[in-house]
Amino acid sequence: MKAEIISIGDEIVTGHISNTNSVWLTKRLLSIGVETSYITAVGDTVANIEAVIQQALRRVNLVIMTGGLGPTDDDLTKRAIVKVFRRNLVFHDEVLEDLKARYSARGITMPEINQNQALLPQGATFLANKLGSAVGILFEEDTKLCVALPGVPAEMKQIVDDELIPLLQERVGSAVTYSRLIRTCGITESALAEKVAPEIPIPEGVKLAYLAHIYGVDLRLTVNAEKNRLAEELIEQPQGWLKRKLGNLVYGEDEQTLQGAVGDLLVEAGATVSLAESCTAGLLAGRIAETPGSSRYLDRGFITYSNESKTELLGVTKKTIENHGAVSTETAEAMALGALERAKTTYAISITGIAGPDGGSEEKPVGLTYIAVAQQGADSSAPSSRSRKFHFGQNRTLNRQRATSAALNLLRLVLLGDDPFTKQ
Amino acid sequence: MKAEIISIGDEIVTGHISNTNSVWLTKRLLSIGVETSYITAVGDTVANIEAVIQQALRRVNLVIMTGGLGPTDDDLTKRAIVKVFRRNLVFHDEVLEDLKARYSARGITMPEINQNQALLPQGATFLANKLGSAVGILFEEDTKLCVALPGVPAEMKQIVDDELIPLLQERVGSAVTYSRLIRTCGITESALAEKVAPEIPIPEGVKLAYLAHIYGVDLRLTVNAEKNRLAEELIEQPQGWLKRKLGNLVYGEDEQTLQGAVGDLLVEAGATVSLAESCTAGLLAGRIAETPGSSRYLDRGFITYSNESKTELLGVTKKTIENHGAVSTETAEAMALGALERAKTTYAISITGIAGPDGGSEEKPVGLTYIAVAQQGADSSAPSSRSRKFHFGQNRTLNRQRATSAALNLLRLVLLGDDPFTKQ
Repeated sequence: MKAEIISIGDEIVTGHISNTNSVWLTKRLLSIGVETSYITAVGDTVANIEAVIQQALRRVNLVIMTGGLGPTDDDLTKRAIVKVFRRNLVFHDEVLEDLKARYSARGITMPEINQNQALLPQGATFLANKLGSAVGILFEEDTKLCVALPGVPAEMKQIVDDELIPLLQERVGSAVTYSRLIRTCGITESALAEKVAPEIPIPEGVKLAYLAHIYGVDLRLTVNAEKNRLAEELIEQPQGWLKRKLGNLVYGEDEQTLQGAVGDLLVEAGATVSLAESCTAGLLAGRIAETPGSSRYLDRGFITYSNESKTELLGVTKKTIENHGAVSTETAEAMALGALERAKTTYAISITGIAGPDGGSEEKPVGLTYIAVAQQGADSSAPSSRSRKFHFGQNRTLNRQRATSAALNLLRLVLLGDDPFTKQ
Repeated sequence: MKAEIISIGDEIVTGHISNTNSVWLTKRLLSIGVETSYITAVGDTVANIEAVIQQALRRVNLVIMTGGLGPTDDDLTKRAIVKVFRRNLVFHDEVLEDLKARYSARGITMPEINQNQALLPQGATFLANKLGSAVGILFEEDTKLCVALPGVPAEMKQIVDDELIPLLQERVGSAVTYSRLIRTCGITESALAEKVAPEIPIPEGVKLAYLAHIYGVDLRLTVNAEKNRLAEELIEQPQGWLKRKLGNLVYGEDEQTLQGAVGDLLVEAGATVSLAESCTAGLLAGRIAETPGSSRYLDRGFITYSNESKTELLGVTKKTIENHGAVSTETAEAMALGALERAKTTYAISITGIAGPDGGSEEKPVGLTYIAVAQQGADSSAPSSRSRKFHFGQNRTLNRQRATSAALNLLRLVLLGDDPFTKQ
């Protein structure tokens, strides 16, 4: 079964929102072996929506539309469906009653406009929406399965998980696409390719791809096979080879995140961490706390945006800041030590840098960032703090995100027993 | 001129990355009056890439491909171009020399694999890439303009801004698409539609759309007109009407962000802010610091993830936490007061909630969040702290993001002289 996802809405083709629905949907479909061949986005124009639906019917056998099912006038998906499939809209009383009941349970009168939500194309069945007013629509045309879903991500996901996936699983045979991500951090795509490409043993039918993103480079192995078991076996050899070859460059597989990997290592070591953040101002702590259960190792953090706060909250001396600047090895290491002592955690990470766009100088350009890791001393020796200098780029947002990844990777390598501070 | 953007790469149709390039590109094109009719994503299969290019040539006159120009074997865009347009690849010495020079300036020998980057389709001109190894490719076929760009966002953007846009501007006439966003926070899409739809005066040719996203609902007014001036005039009437009708629900226009709007109000008032974050663990501070120049009003923040840290860093008494819980009005208000007193800022915001997936109970379910705003008293009266209770949803990531928006909106309304605490 080959799918096409059609995302409908001016907000997508004018760049007002990112099409996160299609990202999630393709992943979810792939997890049950349904490949997405095309993702198409089209604006709120009935004729264009009609054209893309028709084209999808010619090239795939599962068409999933998202968006354009809202109650307002600019929601045109049903109108396009009526035209393409020549079906009238039929009123479904049970949909309206369910909607009214949910509104009244919350003590609110249903806005009149929501009555439109009970109109569905003839012959269609509806997929219940537990979170919002637009139900999913499912119908068949010849051998093609067509689905229309609301564009609100949480609603779309609930309908897919609860209603659509079980239905698709019945139709999909045992053929599966199986893929595995090997995730790396701290190496560029081309350096990775030069390490990997000439030597990797790749069995027939297995595909290798390099996926560079802001937090690192992933290697993806993909295979099509009749059974899950066989697919796994085919991938095992290159997967094992990659992990041996790349060593500590690999932080995890598949859905594992860098912050999750660091969290696992902290739990394993029975260790805790605190943060001292200047330019990232909480992004690193926020990212660590993305992982459920992170309260086991995340204790507290200090956001020290001003120089005074570095002194008052972390004990960085005025002299250190005056002599070396707020963005320096010395300040970074003192910040980490200050956090470590105050929070009494096993480790502390600090970040101080010039995120931009302003504040750079010839000596200290935009993008310059110092990251330190402090740790308690072994056997009652004094705590220590070491740092590393990074040159990121010109973009404020990217610089701050890269700094959080670099910081997590430093702590990861320290936890693995590496010395990431001397490999400049 | 109508454009189609074709995003190439398995990483997109398998959901491994979000197609942020097309979001940025459609916006950038629209800024010079070029509308994007379709965005298509296709995987790394030469036949499918060929098919989508051919289909684009039938329905638009500007085709922009992104991705698949890298030096590795899974980069297939050039191969598809060669097939569709029946052009051979020609070696461009100047491209290679430039690339070698840039590598040697950084003291690195160029990886051999990058030689591929100097091969371009016959008759194509190249668009210089200042940041990476894959140059942009531009050629014409009949009356259609075709462009292929690297998939790395920063590289793609640099080439578009520096090379492609000036070239397109010469070709585009004076007809422009003009659009304006009116951005709201604190009201749902359907409540907004019920306020707006029955009454708004919309001139012929102006389109109104509702764009709900995680941080609020935007209203977009769009018009096609011959000249910028005329377009602006057509939009002025409904724009003014919306701002009057919606009052403080509107926090800004176009690129204005909620954190930017709050920052502007703080600067205007000569005020500063500090943060005390539990479940969001730095996300709110990090979001405030996204705005360049935020050091004028962001002083410091306390990430108090553990109960001990709430007591040690903010002075929340153990009794308060024991009697009312860490997620309560009392703790939230004490956290904000504690931050205010310690940071000596004009305002302090605190967030404490149950982000999920675990930690919820019948009395305090996942999603329950308390947000407080504390402020210094006028005329040497004591500081005060007030809070509001929110019920977000089941999703950890969304709950934490929504909490940051709700917190910013509370402070915004306080700065505007509203009382957002009693409107439960």
